[in-house]
Amino acid sequence: MLERTYDTQTCSIARALEIVGERWTPLILRDTTFSARHFEDLQHRLGIARNVLTERLQRLCDEGMLERRLYQERPDRYEYAATEKARELWPALCALINWGDKYYAPNGPPRLVLHRGCGGNVIAKLGCDSCRTDLTLKDIESRPGPGAKFPM
Amino acid sequence: MLERTYDTQTCSIARALEIVGERWTPLILRDTTFSARHFEDLQHRLGIARNVLTERLQRLCDEGMLERRLYQERPDRYEYAATEKARELWPALCALINWGDKYYAPNGPPRLVLHRGCGGNVIAKLGCDSCRTDLTLKDIESRPGPGAKFPM
Repeated sequence: MLERTYDTQTCSIARALEIVGERWTPLILRDTTFSARHFEDLQHRLGIARNVLTERLQRLCDEGMLERRLYQERPDRYEYAATEKARELWPALCALINWGDKYYAPNGPPRLVLHRGCGGNVIAKLGCDSCRTDLTLKDIESRPGPGAKFPM
Repeated sequence: MLERTYDTQTCSIARALEIVGERWTPLILRDTTFSARHFEDLQHRLGIARNVLTERLQRLCDEGMLERRLYQERPDRYEYAATEKARELWPALCALINWGDKYYAPNGPPRLVLHRGCGGNVIAKLGCDSCRTDLTLKDIESRPGPGAKFPM
């Protein structure tokens, strides 16, 4: 049973945030997107209590976003690898990086996200799934969809 | 003075989330991106306590993301309009919509985000700022930038 943080909202942003909006979860996804991580490595990177990390990892496993794999026996140690579902969140994380870099990184970007080989910066942008054009907000309209409860 | 929710993290995702990750704030941004909204309209849409909404709106005004405009006198009533800085978060919100629609919208998308005129669905995607190519995760690498505190 999912927590319904935004119970009144029939909205995919609200539903997504109920899964990935919890404190520390976006940073766990950041750290697992490019490579699997050991519990100890994640704990060291995040500097959070072990029970909080355990709870967040369990939630992400339950939601099919992380896969828990035994990498050492006696004592048993586990690593966590992002599934495709988690990796599909990267455009959202990259968009946050772009925005945070622009407005809240007075010493320059803490982390570069680069086009491998080319070296250009990776940016999250909007495009049309049908005609493939890149879009800006003025090209976009929003209206209620089939899953809407009320006119929005 | 900004709250430092993720004090140990030298990371633009962490900084961005300190501003826009608070409960209800992403939904306030969702509702103000395409048009200015009256306080009462926002309160009705979100169904949250007036004091919580007031606090969130004040924070977004302080951060230069919303502009507060008097639209009626006696009694004074205000509307809130997204600034360019807030509108630049739309790729992150659109990415969350795409992901939430795919995984957590069993009755179909609650809200359609469409290419005006064309009618295609708007998707958040990754591209290279230099060569303009569309990218997937396997085309991307991440490494410490000039604002990094430690090797990441």
